[in-house]
Amino acid sequence: MNEHIAPVPLDKAYRLLNHGPTVLVSARHEGVENVMAAAWACALDYAPPKLTVVLDKGAATRALVENSGRFVIQVPTVRQLELTYQVGHRSLAREPDKLEHSGVELFGMPGFDLPFVAGCSAWLACRVLPEPRNEATYDLFIGEVEGAWSDTRVFKDGHWHFEAADPGLRSLHYIAGGFFYAIGEPMQAGETAPE
Amino acid sequence: MNEHIAPVPLDKAYRLLNHGPTVLVSARHEGVENVMAAAWACALDYAPPKLTVVLDKGAATRALVENSGRFVIQVPTVRQLELTYQVGHRSLAREPDKLEHSGVELFGMPGFDLPFVAGCSAWLACRVLPEPRNEATYDLFIGEVEGAWSDTRVFKDGHWHFEAADPGLRSLHYIAGGFFYAIGEPMQAGETAPE
Repeated sequence: MNEHIAPVPLDKAYRLLNHGPTVLVSARHEGVENVMAAAWACALDYAPPKLTVVLDKGAATRALVENSGRFVIQVPTVRQLELTYQVGHRSLAREPDKLEHSGVELFGMPGFDLPFVAGCSAWLACRVLPEPRNEATYDLFIGEVEGAWSDTRVFKDGHWHFEAADPGLRSLHYIAGGFFYAIGEPMQAGETAPE
Repeated sequence: MNEHIAPVPLDKAYRLLNHGPTVLVSARHEGVENVMAAAWACALDYAPPKLTVVLDKGAATRALVENSGRFVIQVPTVRQLELTYQVGHRSLAREPDKLEHSGVELFGMPGFDLPFVAGCSAWLACRVLPEPRNEATYDLFIGEVEGAWSDTRVFKDGHWHFEAADPGLRSLHYIAGGFFYAIGEPMQAGETAPE
């Protein structure tokens, strides 16, 4: 955990996902750790904060989430474009050194027995709220956020600062076939609104 | 329906939402129409395409969705920044002329008894897959996409073209307090990948 990482108040945690970034999902069970990419993650509630994430039945990370009941959602950066693509396409089952080959470095947070991916801009430590029908029918998992942190160079005082931060810290938004967009310029609505 | 709007093949419909844009949700029941903004909408499956959207119990649009079993998810543009903010903050219950005051113009699509918001970049016509527990516990609705269309000036041949299109057609990504980001520059991963 480096000196730029600071906790985010839980009632502001939804803002880490509100703009729809592609995320990394990490989990650990009985010494096995894995990381996958997920474009289908979304905020679900404010307080306590909850989120949804779709985990395919074929994903090795899903078994770790199911068995441990915990996972981390983290927001990768433009600097991690290749890492994000690689963890999304390599398979731990076929390639035991997947994380090393993808350039993933993991670190810990005091009080949380979870693997966090170094170099991201935000992290949400989650506990699975078991919903067997959603998980079986839709591959849809619901997590309650128990801890949140950001890299204060890009998210501070409850707000993203993409426009002022290093462009390498922008979030990634996946489309398909290795093609992403980075987040762009800020826009303020409501300042000239009637009433 | 103007000359720029064309159908999107259903197996490519997830790409309209994959980058996490803030959306507009519209519905109609017994002659009452409404439109709201939602940052918490997400793709859920490829084929048949499904999506999730969070609809607060206090939202007038939710009752229309519940009663009609149908809704439209559409992707507003930078040109619609103020419209998006206004439909997200005005209430049909308190303000019967909400849509007119917010600058919303509705149009129809042949074969779909649903209100579509003019000027958006993409539209997904959905049928509710009833999941009473999700709806009651989490305000979470699941829709199956039965029709999809795009403005071909910005989404064509299964791909977004934000980098080539008019900047006014970029998607919006909400944070809080009227503050949005527009989608930014394209990035291609995997071209220099090992293996």
